[in-house]
Amino acid sequence: MIVTPIKEIFDDPLQLESGELLPGFEIVFETYGELAPARDNAILICHGLTSDHHAAGRHDKDEQKPGWWDGAIGPGKPFDTDRYCIISSNVIGGFGGSSGPASTNPATGIPYAMGFPIVTIADMVRAQTFLADRLGIERFHTIAGGCMGGFQVLEWMSRHPGRLANALVISATARVSAHTIALWKVMREAICRDPNWRGGDYYDHRPPVDGIAFGAMVGALFWMSRDVMTARFGTNIIEGKKPAYTFEADFEIEAFMNQIAEGAASRIDPNGLMYSMRAMDYFDMARGRENLAAAFSDTTARSLLVSYGSDWRYPSSEMEEIHQAIKAAGAACEHKILKSDFGHGAFIYDFEDLGPVIRDFLS
Amino acid sequence: MIVTPIKEIFDDPLQLESGELLPGFEIVFETYGELAPARDNAILICHGLTSDHHAAGRHDKDEQKPGWWDGAIGPGKPFDTDRYCIISSNVIGGFGGSSGPASTNPATGIPYAMGFPIVTIADMVRAQTFLADRLGIERFHTIAGGCMGGFQVLEWMSRHPGRLANALVISATARVSAHTIALWKVMREAICRDPNWRGGDYYDHRPPVDGIAFGAMVGALFWMSRDVMTARFGTNIIEGKKPAYTFEADFEIEAFMNQIAEGAASRIDPNGLMYSMRAMDYFDMARGRENLAAAFSDTTARSLLVSYGSDWRYPSSEMEEIHQAIKAAGAACEHKILKSDFGHGAFIYDFEDLGPVIRDFLS
Repeated sequence: MIVTPIKEIFDDPLQLESGELLPGFEIVFETYGELAPARDNAILICHGLTSDHHAAGRHDKDEQKPGWWDGAIGPGKPFDTDRYCIISSNVIGGFGGSSGPASTNPATGIPYAMGFPIVTIADMVRAQTFLADRLGIERFHTIAGGCMGGFQVLEWMSRHPGRLANALVISATARVSAHTIALWKVMREAICRDPNWRGGDYYDHRPPVDGIAFGAMVGALFWMSRDVMTARFGTNIIEGKKPAYTFEADFEIEAFMNQIAEGAASRIDPNGLMYSMRAMDYFDMARGRENLAAAFSDTTARSLLVSYGSDWRYPSSEMEEIHQAIKAAGAACEHKILKSDFGHGAFIYDFEDLGPVIRDFLS
Repeated sequence: MIVTPIKEIFDDPLQLESGELLPGFEIVFETYGELAPARDNAILICHGLTSDHHAAGRHDKDEQKPGWWDGAIGPGKPFDTDRYCIISSNVIGGFGGSSGPASTNPATGIPYAMGFPIVTIADMVRAQTFLADRLGIERFHTIAGGCMGGFQVLEWMSRHPGRLANALVISATARVSAHTIALWKVMREAICRDPNWRGGDYYDHRPPVDGIAFGAMVGALFWMSRDVMTARFGTNIIEGKKPAYTFEADFEIEAFMNQIAEGAASRIDPNGLMYSMRAMDYFDMARGRENLAAAFSDTTARSLLVSYGSDWRYPSSEMEEIHQAIKAAGAACEHKILKSDFGHGAFIYDFEDLGPVIRDFLS
């Protein structure tokens, strides 16, 4: 499946949660499958922190890897492109082409960099409503997403209840955890401490590649569990090597961490990652409300929540809190807890259990 | 209790596990309580990664905090100084005064810095045997330690079996985990990426304070669990503040992380920390042996192993592996699993259960 990203330009200013105005914005998105004449078969996919709108297929036949959810989207796949029109849009305030810190500031003619306003998850979703209007989609058949994408689905359910019939929320919580705020702070500092960051004004220079590489190493300490690292690397010395007793890599796990750093995301604009993390920091569905159920008082969508027992950062216990809140607010909701060794990454890498669950939910 | 550190100088070279020779070395230590005329009441305390020989009492009455195990060592305390002579020695290849990267290299007249040879846990322990000889202690009543200190106790049991009657190993494993090697790598890189590190040659300049501060923030993501951070900080906005929607601290957890960074260990020599972490990297009691039990084939000491169910980095399951190995090798050994909210730090901060366990073991 060869896909081409599309860009839509919106000239009206976007009112942001912070009080700032974004003077016009752009959204990049991809579609897979055909929109029915009644426009009632559209499914919106919301991406996570380190992924983007490229969810399925390849941009050209030489592209090494397909989109990040290619296992879930396609003809005959759980999100069946023979039946549905899947729309995957790039968030604003991130990287990938929608408006963000790499965009040109119309007031200066150069990239916004750190001059881009802080956006929230609710702002990302509001921008998506403009895209839906432009595409003539009054009501999505389903809106689905995991992690930061799941945060977006919850905001759709809460603030735009009439615009979706079904909601699929995976590996998310009702609020960001203090631990995640702390981790994002550390990862942002990894970027900012790289002299090439230059206060964010690196677009004419070498970007802070070392900083984002270092951030990726910090991330690896969380994405991969102690057990998985032990099983895969243990205390093994690099094959064919004797311990050198220096600070150079003697152990397989050290070589692996160096690979992580080297492979770190040339695709990712460091400023964009910083803004998306910051958007997550402000996510708390209960803030300013009496309780969590109040966030779902207008929700009508039928929803399925999926969590993984092995995901300690977005635990099933907190997904269950959302489940109870939605039910208390009177909407139909189910919560399924799946097993996977992949923890928080399970929804991207492991379709054995998730695939049938998505199929059942959509049919 | 006012204590004064003592320094012993050893002129003979120390053969290191790497094959290198350390041409003479120094050990700094403290003692609490009196050595009996028969020299049979000496207890050696082995410290962990970020602590040092200052285990109990104060260096002067104005010292803000007492030694790191002051809750366990003193008159009438679990390590009762009315009965025992407690000796707490600073490891070589660390910080705190024993030979390490901050020591003067006799060949150059300036600090070794990165020219100091890599030492292992076994090397740290061999240096301690010289101190025991100097003090005329043939056989310790007990050797005790947690985390990296526990690694040292295991090496004493394995390689110097005749020199201790009892061993107390807390919150340790038979080998470092791949996850810990990866974490130490990240923390070393945090130091090395600070321009003030200067390849380790900072002793005449400002030390890499920012680097060690950043490392401390990374560490905090592990020392404090997600649950504890959630309970203490949640998504709370800093008191009296409205969200500013910038990258400056808006959340309590961010302010806390900034405190961690600011308070980061002016006491710790960054190079010394790097060397001690590297010593832990090479720790694997089974390496080069048929199995773990073979490491304890000569062990005669009666041992008590203590682990904490909440300590995922040094889990009870791996302590149990040591327990089975020691028993298989024919020595008396018991394993107690304690509960504490403090996880890996429990043995330093929580004496409610540990105190009585130490008392029982020693009596």
